[in-house]
Amino acid sequence: MLSTPTDTCTRLPTVRIQGTMAKRVAVILSGCGVYDGTEIHEASAVLVHLSRAGAKVQMFAPNADQMHVVNHCDGKPTEEKRNILQESARIARGDVTDLANLDVSAFDALIIPGGFGVAKNLSDWAVKNKDCTIQPHLERVPRLSTKPESHWACAASPHPRCQNPAWLWPYAQTAGAVKEMGCKHVNTGVEKAHVDVKNKLVTTSAFMCNAPFHSVFDGIGVMVKETLKLA
Amino acid sequence: MLSTPTDTCTRLPTVRIQGTMAKRVAVILSGCGVYDGTEIHEASAVLVHLSRAGAKVQMFAPNADQMHVVNHCDGKPTEEKRNILQESARIARGDVTDLANLDVSAFDALIIPGGFGVAKNLSDWAVKNKDCTIQPHLERVPRLSTKPESHWACAASPHPRCQNPAWLWPYAQTAGAVKEMGCKHVNTGVEKAHVDVKNKLVTTSAFMCNAPFHSVFDGIGVMVKETLKLA
Repeated sequence: MLSTPTDTCTRLPTVRIQGTMAKRVAVILSGCGVYDGTEIHEASAVLVHLSRAGAKVQMFAPNADQMHVVNHCDGKPTEEKRNILQESARIARGDVTDLANLDVSAFDALIIPGGFGVAKNLSDWAVKNKDCTIQPHLERVPRLSTKPESHWACAASPHPRCQNPAWLWPYAQTAGAVKEMGCKHVNTGVEKAHVDVKNKLVTTSAFMCNAPFHSVFDGIGVMVKETLKLA
Repeated sequence: MLSTPTDTCTRLPTVRIQGTMAKRVAVILSGCGVYDGTEIHEASAVLVHLSRAGAKVQMFAPNADQMHVVNHCDGKPTEEKRNILQESARIARGDVTDLANLDVSAFDALIIPGGFGVAKNLSDWAVKNKDCTIQPHLERVPRLSTKPESHWACAASPHPRCQNPAWLWPYAQTAGAVKEMGCKHVNTGVEKAHVDVKNKLVTTSAFMCNAPFHSVFDGIGVMVKETLKLA
């Protein structure tokens, strides 16, 4: 049987841009798959754009059970149990750290890709909506930091500083729900990002609108670029 | 709880390039995760580049159990059972078809992203090496078709027409194994693709070399472009 090349393929490269220190970015994952974890293509696009920008990346996820496991063929929950950290490792190619060990002072920015895992595993927004609480290890992060954060697909991103989530159809009902939480909703094209300079928050709609893969990829590229500018 | 937006977000867009018919491309998945399925970032890059090129994409995977399930944190097999089609649906955002229903005549090209799933679920190469057999529904595909195929990470792609797999360190031992099968090994840079015009086979090394995410993404872009040229 082939050996699993854990020693050779799991480390993200560290690159220094000529004349500047590489920006250090924490990427927070919440599983692997849009309906019960991190949206795979959003996470992948983030990693490609951060890699091209020469950022130093470390991925994190909670070491806990997922809220549930969804059969992605029919969209229905199953009886399975899966661990958020282990499933996130599928996206991270093995190189993911327990979110409990995130030291905010070691990073210049934080990025949270979308997917229902954000509303199910990083918070209980999927169940409690405006009365939700945030995963304890994540909840302490923004309070410790004045650093920029960039996340999107805010249907799944309840957050005390999420004043300006940017999204479009078909998740309009989510916009309403977040307004109930006292947030402002800003419609933004899929290939753009919304920058909230005051709160150091950058968002893009990604798959919140029913856009082609390359448009989502490009919008995330703008989001990453704007985030690194603030960092 | 949030409803799963299966009706709105699972269909890949169909785009027609000005003045040309959109190329129809079948993408074959083998699970979700590099060590027991499809390498997630290779699949995502394929979908982004095909989307930008205006290709019409349909994804397929076998409706069968995975060879095994690997904990991607420690690289070790677990006792779990998972279905290849259901796990592939995580990458496909729900829109994946049983490989048994692939009608080759409906497509201009076939792309198989890498990952150990190709050697474990689309064939038994991981166990039998040069004496391997190919998954029955996939095995009939190239014999029925003279259309271009593009796949990579040939450590995991045994194939009767795989004359020119392109890869680099750290998988050199794989190169030796494939040579035993009578194939020719061509070293190619990660940001390039190798085009075998005679056999209509296009390959790129992707994660076969220990390259940054954006270099892998770019190499897959060249591979997709060359594949569509042949289609």
